[in-house]
Amino acid sequence: MPKISKRAQEMPASPVRKLVPYAIQAKQKGVHVYHLNIGQPDIETPETALDAIKNIDLKVLEYALSEGNIEYREVLKTYYHSLGFTDLSANNFIVTNGGSEALNFAISTLCDDGDEVIIPEPYYANYNGFANTFNVKVVAVPSTIDTGFALPAVEEFEKKITSRTRAILICNPGNPTGYLYTAEELKKLAEIALKHDITIISDEVYREYVYDGQQQISMLAFPELTEHCIVIDSESKRYSMCGVRIGCLVTRSKKIHDAAMLFAQARLSPVLLGQIAAAAAHQNDTAYILKVREEYTKRRNLLVDLLNAIPGVICPKPKGAFYCVAELPVDDSEKFAQWLLEVYSHNNETIMVAPAGGFYSNPELGKKQVRIAYVLKEEDLKRSAELLNDALQKYKLEFNI
Amino acid sequence: MPKISKRAQEMPASPVRKLVPYAIQAKQKGVHVYHLNIGQPDIETPETALDAIKNIDLKVLEYALSEGNIEYREVLKTYYHSLGFTDLSANNFIVTNGGSEALNFAISTLCDDGDEVIIPEPYYANYNGFANTFNVKVVAVPSTIDTGFALPAVEEFEKKITSRTRAILICNPGNPTGYLYTAEELKKLAEIALKHDITIISDEVYREYVYDGQQQISMLAFPELTEHCIVIDSESKRYSMCGVRIGCLVTRSKKIHDAAMLFAQARLSPVLLGQIAAAAAHQNDTAYILKVREEYTKRRNLLVDLLNAIPGVICPKPKGAFYCVAELPVDDSEKFAQWLLEVYSHNNETIMVAPAGGFYSNPELGKKQVRIAYVLKEEDLKRSAELLNDALQKYKLEFNI
Repeated sequence: MPKISKRAQEMPASPVRKLVPYAIQAKQKGVHVYHLNIGQPDIETPETALDAIKNIDLKVLEYALSEGNIEYREVLKTYYHSLGFTDLSANNFIVTNGGSEALNFAISTLCDDGDEVIIPEPYYANYNGFANTFNVKVVAVPSTIDTGFALPAVEEFEKKITSRTRAILICNPGNPTGYLYTAEELKKLAEIALKHDITIISDEVYREYVYDGQQQISMLAFPELTEHCIVIDSESKRYSMCGVRIGCLVTRSKKIHDAAMLFAQARLSPVLLGQIAAAAAHQNDTAYILKVREEYTKRRNLLVDLLNAIPGVICPKPKGAFYCVAELPVDDSEKFAQWLLEVYSHNNETIMVAPAGGFYSNPELGKKQVRIAYVLKEEDLKRSAELLNDALQKYKLEFNI
Repeated sequence: MPKISKRAQEMPASPVRKLVPYAIQAKQKGVHVYHLNIGQPDIETPETALDAIKNIDLKVLEYALSEGNIEYREVLKTYYHSLGFTDLSANNFIVTNGGSEALNFAISTLCDDGDEVIIPEPYYANYNGFANTFNVKVVAVPSTIDTGFALPAVEEFEKKITSRTRAILICNPGNPTGYLYTAEELKKLAEIALKHDITIISDEVYREYVYDGQQQISMLAFPELTEHCIVIDSESKRYSMCGVRIGCLVTRSKKIHDAAMLFAQARLSPVLLGQIAAAAAHQNDTAYILKVREEYTKRRNLLVDLLNAIPGVICPKPKGAFYCVAELPVDDSEKFAQWLLEVYSHNNETIMVAPAGGFYSNPELGKKQVRIAYVLKEEDLKRSAELLNDALQKYKLEFNI
């Protein structure tokens, strides 16, 4: 049998991959599964976007330009101008197949084999996958649940910098913790990047979903990082259109842009229809974004309160995105998550959560934690919390914890 | 300034990238450019596909499954059954963002840094880009215009095999040459693959477009390659829907499938809307495919005859796909292609062709050759050939060739 590459052998599986067969089994037994394990919102896609797709007047679904069609990049420009970055032109954007491809481009543009990217953990699990694809090493800076996953002192980042460090990758607001970076933290990161001549990759795909009247600060707010900053963006979460696969890589650096474009050209074209949908979604979207933000706020408040009311559960209140990381009174959250699907049910219902081990470079650190996405409506979240409470009690009895 | 990775520095630019600014300039001067440089057909996308998009009844444009939604994979299964591969199930397919992503997955699944992939040249230029992304070395086996780009003797492949060889990559029918592999050639390749325990990656995205009553033979026709074969497929060319970005990786090997899935999971999801369009296109497509094949046959016959009628031009008749490689009486086809856009015009018209250097591992081998895509209607091809004839005469005078 031919060999599989080392890079494939070392690819981390997604945190819930092992659980999927158990979820399928549960459904086959007639058990309803509440999916708190994935960032797939039940929020409706803006009608403007759906209508734009339904009204396409095209005879040939042609390639888009490798960098994205100018019509859509002009929309991106206008959107970024509205965020205050009025120096950006359409040429600062490369349209990608989701934020995922933008992350791949960022890593392949900056990193060679054995190079290092520093990431505060817990972090979005697929960062491991993208890094591993290019034999790049993730160097984690730990944050912990007892401080609400506050960013570690910036000195901790500096300690990890070596001659192989090419970038610091942050997610702001963060998946999985919902952590929102302060202006001061970002400023310190910017200083480190300049001092050590490395790039900040700032994943800002949840930018609009920040709560309690706070506002996300983009890494683009630091013009001194012109040559040292890549922003990862996506329309997936903003407009609940994860399936259109439209993201972008934003940079002021012509050097980075032109290098990333070589990877973009090799794969020819980002999705045409998604650009049409996303361009439409951006038109008059204020009411939509406000309404969705309000909805997530309500869900967050409800869920986090319910979780913290369960004996032994600790869940810091996230400031943004639509995830939280909760510590559970269990021996092993992966075992518990599997048990929820394989064994447990109550009135033919159960929940699926993401064991948090996969969000850490050292899975042991997340062994008692799960990530919960509040992407379901309040009623479902309420029921999910009830199920979790009931399940934890039964699990304790069964395993004598 | 932060460093750009070595892999980015070594990425080959697309063969026409340097020409694009000249094409834009020409258009700005009011010159009409006939695009013979890219495989973007003017053929209409099937109405079934366009209608499926216009009639979507979805409220949320959700993620698709990482491997592609089951509805579309069932369509793929049915299609492959119709090709005779009735042992395939939906689990033999991974849906990808175009054939490009399938190629990326194939290479990353099989190859580590410094590993080698053997490819008969001239070959699709982006193979260089995908290989370079993963620091994989392309080892070319040359074919030449005087034999109509016939596959080199299989012994030539065997000579190139080293301990680092992981795969032989073929494109059948071939871009850029239109070469169609014979049953005997494929059989010999299969034997080599088994003997040396390496994988055949067979890019078959032009499978339907084969002329003169011949038929393409898929690498899947060799069941002995169960563990040694990956087929790359795409809906882009089949249905003139390059912008939907739907391709797939097909393999009977569970080992290869499961490894490739790890890369598919990291990027979450292929395009949802494209799967809907492609699934619809496959329904009752016989008449569509026949009509398009007939159209390409006419175009090929017209173009190749016109090209060979130009003094000094040699163009073997392609047996499939919709490209041909022609040798021109010029000193340097890249210089000539640029001159066509920058200097030449006739009645405010000119043509854009792809210099063939980029389709060779050693660009010198293609220095007098261009790739011409017959993706324009007959009338435009006729005018393009006239322009080429006229341009060649003027170029010879100008540069005293």
